[in-house]
Amino acid sequence: MNEDRSELTARANNKGVDAAVAAARRVIASLLHAGDGSDAEMSEVAERLNAVADYLDEHAPAVEERMVDMWRGEGVTRHDPVTGPENALAPPLALTGKEDGSIEGVVVLGMPYQGPPGFVHGGVSALLLDHTLGVANHWGGPSGMTAELTLRYHRPTPLFEPLTVTGRQVAVDGRKIRAVGTISAGGEVCVSAEGLFVAKHLPRPR
Amino acid sequence: MNEDRSELTARANNKGVDAAVAAARRVIASLLHAGDGSDAEMSEVAERLNAVADYLDEHAPAVEERMVDMWRGEGVTRHDPVTGPENALAPPLALTGKEDGSIEGVVVLGMPYQGPPGFVHGGVSALLLDHTLGVANHWGGPSGMTAELTLRYHRPTPLFEPLTVTGRQVAVDGRKIRAVGTISAGGEVCVSAEGLFVAKHLPRPR
Repeated sequence: MNEDRSELTARANNKGVDAAVAAARRVIASLLHAGDGSDAEMSEVAERLNAVADYLDEHAPAVEERMVDMWRGEGVTRHDPVTGPENALAPPLALTGKEDGSIEGVVVLGMPYQGPPGFVHGGVSALLLDHTLGVANHWGGPSGMTAELTLRYHRPTPLFEPLTVTGRQVAVDGRKIRAVGTISAGGEVCVSAEGLFVAKHLPRPR
Repeated sequence: MNEDRSELTARANNKGVDAAVAAARRVIASLLHAGDGSDAEMSEVAERLNAVADYLDEHAPAVEERMVDMWRGEGVTRHDPVTGPENALAPPLALTGKEDGSIEGVVVLGMPYQGPPGFVHGGVSALLLDHTLGVANHWGGPSGMTAELTLRYHRPTPLFEPLTVTGRQVAVDGRKIRAVGTISAGGEVCVSAEGLFVAKHLPRPR
């Protein structure tokens, strides 16, 4: 599906499950925006959402079957909670590989990702950077699992503004892989990350 | 609402927006479980979800007004992406303060929180621990904003099993606050965290 090899994350289709997931992201944000003070009939909203979940569950494959499918071919980049077009938790962040070996993406985060008033949750920044460093390893050389991750918070990361997320593999020493990354807003680094990864992968279900 | 002072996170009501958010969490999981191979009419699902979002948006307060409301009184613990009953991104994790000054919660994470096949995303563990350390500071003494967070991944953290999340403030030196925490499964530590926090808070909107 990704015709350009430098597109490192799955591109959402405007149809199929991806369109439904995009709508689910709207629901998440709208529920939080509405909140307890809204005069919406929330019990009716709950009924409508439960009906959608029931309908989907009636048409879903067995969990084991789905786990095999999501770890095969293009499925691998379609389901994660950072970039996945099938995962409504994902903002989603799209990442592109650059010729200098680094990767980059731009994302705007709304209310559901809030930590301090008006700013991104520090743990959400950690989630984005952990994932981005992992993808940077895939782009730059050998990849693996996170062994240690250090985040430094330099200034608050704003909600509702374009954030640039970068990652780059910086060293490979035997099975040890090191990668770094940043989240910036308006040209200033808000969060930086250093990760140590170990070149191993858990088996895929089959 | 929390009658027991040791309940550090908001308890979901089975009505109002919380019930709708609980249903939205089901939709998120069911969409990912159904995936692209499902024979569900996804364009119809998208329409139904967009209609719910439209309805909620029609009944939502202005963003500025909502931001004030969510940072007032009990609202403060109702909207975050880890514990908030109004935030469908949150698993949610409920945290309880203990007499020894530590805090603890148990949570089961499903498919949307997946990183490696069958295991929790390392960045999701970071999100849970960053938040838990912040709440541990509130329980244990002065609290503040994350300045530095280090995660160590000892073994993969399983999906679909009860995870125990703990946090504890360990030192306060002037404005510097240190806290530690863990995520364990079956009595074994999967991820440990050390955080340095600075005793400052961003202003609340009003």
